[in-house]
Amino acid sequence: MYKDSSPGEINSVMEAAWEAFHIYRGFSLKQRAGFMRAIAGEIGACGDALIQTAMQETNLPEARLRGERARTIFQLESYAAACEKGDWLEARIDTALPDKNPPRPDIRKMLVPLGPVVVFGASNFPFAYSTAGGDTASAFAAGCPVIVKAHPAHPRTSGIVAAAITRAAEKTGMPKGIFAHITGISFEVGKALITHVHCKAVGFTGSFAGGKQLSDWASQRPEPIPVFAEMGSVNPVFLLPEKLKQSAPEIAVQVAASITLGVGQFCTNPGLIIGIESDALQSFVHDLGKAIQQTLPGIMLHQGIADAFANKREEALMQENVHLVAESLLADDAGESQRTGLPTIATVDGKTFQRNPLLHKEVFGPYSLVVRCADQLEMLQVARQLEGQLTATLMASLADLKNNVELAEAVKNICGRFILNGVPTGVEVCLSMQHGGPFPASTDSRFGAVGADAIRRFVRPLAFQNWPDELLPEELKNANPLHIRRTVNNEVTEGAI
Amino acid sequence: MYKDSSPGEINSVMEAAWEAFHIYRGFSLKQRAGFMRAIAGEIGACGDALIQTAMQETNLPEARLRGERARTIFQLESYAAACEKGDWLEARIDTALPDKNPPRPDIRKMLVPLGPVVVFGASNFPFAYSTAGGDTASAFAAGCPVIVKAHPAHPRTSGIVAAAITRAAEKTGMPKGIFAHITGISFEVGKALITHVHCKAVGFTGSFAGGKQLSDWASQRPEPIPVFAEMGSVNPVFLLPEKLKQSAPEIAVQVAASITLGVGQFCTNPGLIIGIESDALQSFVHDLGKAIQQTLPGIMLHQGIADAFANKREEALMQENVHLVAESLLADDAGESQRTGLPTIATVDGKTFQRNPLLHKEVFGPYSLVVRCADQLEMLQVARQLEGQLTATLMASLADLKNNVELAEAVKNICGRFILNGVPTGVEVCLSMQHGGPFPASTDSRFGAVGADAIRRFVRPLAFQNWPDELLPEELKNANPLHIRRTVNNEVTEGAI
Repeated sequence: MYKDSSPGEINSVMEAAWEAFHIYRGFSLKQRAGFMRAIAGEIGACGDALIQTAMQETNLPEARLRGERARTIFQLESYAAACEKGDWLEARIDTALPDKNPPRPDIRKMLVPLGPVVVFGASNFPFAYSTAGGDTASAFAAGCPVIVKAHPAHPRTSGIVAAAITRAAEKTGMPKGIFAHITGISFEVGKALITHVHCKAVGFTGSFAGGKQLSDWASQRPEPIPVFAEMGSVNPVFLLPEKLKQSAPEIAVQVAASITLGVGQFCTNPGLIIGIESDALQSFVHDLGKAIQQTLPGIMLHQGIADAFANKREEALMQENVHLVAESLLADDAGESQRTGLPTIATVDGKTFQRNPLLHKEVFGPYSLVVRCADQLEMLQVARQLEGQLTATLMASLADLKNNVELAEAVKNICGRFILNGVPTGVEVCLSMQHGGPFPASTDSRFGAVGADAIRRFVRPLAFQNWPDELLPEELKNANPLHIRRTVNNEVTEGAI
Repeated sequence: MYKDSSPGEINSVMEAAWEAFHIYRGFSLKQRAGFMRAIAGEIGACGDALIQTAMQETNLPEARLRGERARTIFQLESYAAACEKGDWLEARIDTALPDKNPPRPDIRKMLVPLGPVVVFGASNFPFAYSTAGGDTASAFAAGCPVIVKAHPAHPRTSGIVAAAITRAAEKTGMPKGIFAHITGISFEVGKALITHVHCKAVGFTGSFAGGKQLSDWASQRPEPIPVFAEMGSVNPVFLLPEKLKQSAPEIAVQVAASITLGVGQFCTNPGLIIGIESDALQSFVHDLGKAIQQTLPGIMLHQGIADAFANKREEALMQENVHLVAESLLADDAGESQRTGLPTIATVDGKTFQRNPLLHKEVFGPYSLVVRCADQLEMLQVARQLEGQLTATLMASLADLKNNVELAEAVKNICGRFILNGVPTGVEVCLSMQHGGPFPASTDSRFGAVGADAIRRFVRPLAFQNWPDELLPEELKNANPLHIRRTVNNEVTEGAI
């Protein structure tokens, strides 16, 4: 049913997207926002059938999927509002100074869309980071057509959402080619999309191997194109001594819940916990282990992810000096055991962790490694050696923070979101959110995938020099008919010129 | 005197930059701005000796170099002012909503520096795009240490400016390693810098071959890093029929001056002129040719550029259906003729141009190719086929623009700056400027190299979640002690929370 799209089909789709681009980029912010709101409406109107299909394909529970659909609708609506408001356009105007030597011409700059964007959705967010998810919403707000490569783990869910987008496009008068839905399992399908001359940017959420491959193809094109790939991370949690002494049992419960939330299948899952050898750490590990033992193994998204989890968990546990602390003691339903993710905690000493790069790698699922450092210095060394992360967390009292300034600075430098006394799971959709981070968490730390700033991945500045008012885009006209915020001669204003 | 820096020296310099980064990124915006203003002061204080040295090394005339030094000082001072003002930080705050379900934590985001930046200066701007030029100023404002790879065409000029930066760093208490000056001719020096683990971003201005090579090295690193390479372009000028009929002689004079300004050695030099066969075009080409014949050949920056110009000019003129229109008739001073750039105009028909990609390539120097299109459709085809450009220009009346909407849209889509009835040379340093463009004009069309927005190449967003006010950076504290513009709960304000 979902066989690979042929090279000919892919070419037709990309040609249609290119034609659509030339029309859609001329559409007003209001028109774009109207289209996005219509998509939100159509997805809402899919009702229970969509939820049921997603439940069948992803094993995710109904409440989670209802919540995720609501989030997806909120993303579309809030990015539509941001699109219309126009702050993201970064309109900058410097009016002519004919008496300057040399004279300064009138120059006006705004952000314009890059072109067709290919989106690779994530299996772990079948709505919010898939067909009509954050990348698609960002691209439509930017003024770019979207070609979604359906995730093979939820093709029917993806198809229902794609049909909703197509209905919304028809109802709001969008050009043919504004959206396409491509299916395929072979990597050749993704490669054909990314290397097509009319593909101008890529959004991806998934594994490091997948994201890095797409990024390499994109940079090896005759015309390299930008790829924003969010590739996950181990999201280290640092346990500072005073805080741990005060609250080891509470932190253990909080962290255990975060590790096993959604069967550990979040990009922000805390896969690494770093503490300093002490009675408090012993007690924390003991409590964490007990909580994990009492956590029911959940069914993972699909067989491929379950197998990868089992293999990577096994590989991690086999490393020198790595010891199993605890795994869930709650029996599997025999029929499902092949697809469940067994909640697991392991531990290793700080020196071994520093020596063995495999232990720095994500084990996608409900697994976390506790690194026991000999002292404060070793914890600092571990922090300095860590790769880029989506998030990093300090569990710390005020005194801990005063005693660990270098550690906080080192951790700040490797993450996109820096959390104090919380857990990394739970990504709020708001302007202040950063979902991204230094490589290998993402391919470009200068951008993020959550919140309306994500639009910026798919736009570029264009300056207009010496154009008469009547020929300028609405966004840059003297009268400011769209009432957007602009920087005029270095002053920010919503007024006319 | 200027031999290649050794791998050991490069490693020491990069280690020192990394150490400096951890200190400098903690410095306040005011401290960064103070450092940049001190550099401006020190460069000013270099006086005539700097100008004389640059004249000897670059063959550029005194007035031009004095102007360029003033521009460089202006860049440092205006980016310092922008740095201090803090708009570029994109501070976004969403305060906690404990009653939301799930509760929203307090999240605050701002831009933070990437790390040490390696800057490769341009030979054609020995001050403004070299040692203390726009890339260096952008990186210092961002909070990044800078390692300049001195351009081998003006090593002594570069050395004087580097010493000025070092003095400014000492006087303003900057950390050791905040700036380094590396010399070398071999490509191995550049490669060693870019592939060093502590290099976190690259700024480059120069040729396509150079920029592409750096970009490839950067993307092939174990940890890929962003490169902003401005690689020049042919800056097409489209002559629309009514405007040409009205003003052929004036446009010819204007374009001839732009082609030969600074011996054609500007990235924004108009190297391609596209018109439609007509009496007006004949007359324009005739007038342009006459103006070129009467332009004195100037001495080019260095022998390498003069040789490359001579060779590429020769190669272009040898292409099928390319005809020489005119070259300067003014005799060279015999002793200098090897290093002069001969102002040259050639012409070709639209079909040949579309067929021969070599004719799309930049001939860096005072050379321009006039493409004679059969009709309006062919001009549109040429526009659609063109590669990415820093600038594109329409010479057009209002009626022309109404009759050529598709052309204007096609041209808009390939350039970073879109000019009406002007010339592309002359790049104003202001916020509305875009100096960059779709590949191959630059490696990333989403950024630019002129104006304070250029700072953004070297920063990334970092979100703080759930931090108490006293531990947040000044930029994000409730009281807004720096009085910067911030987006608080989706409203822009300079006030406190």
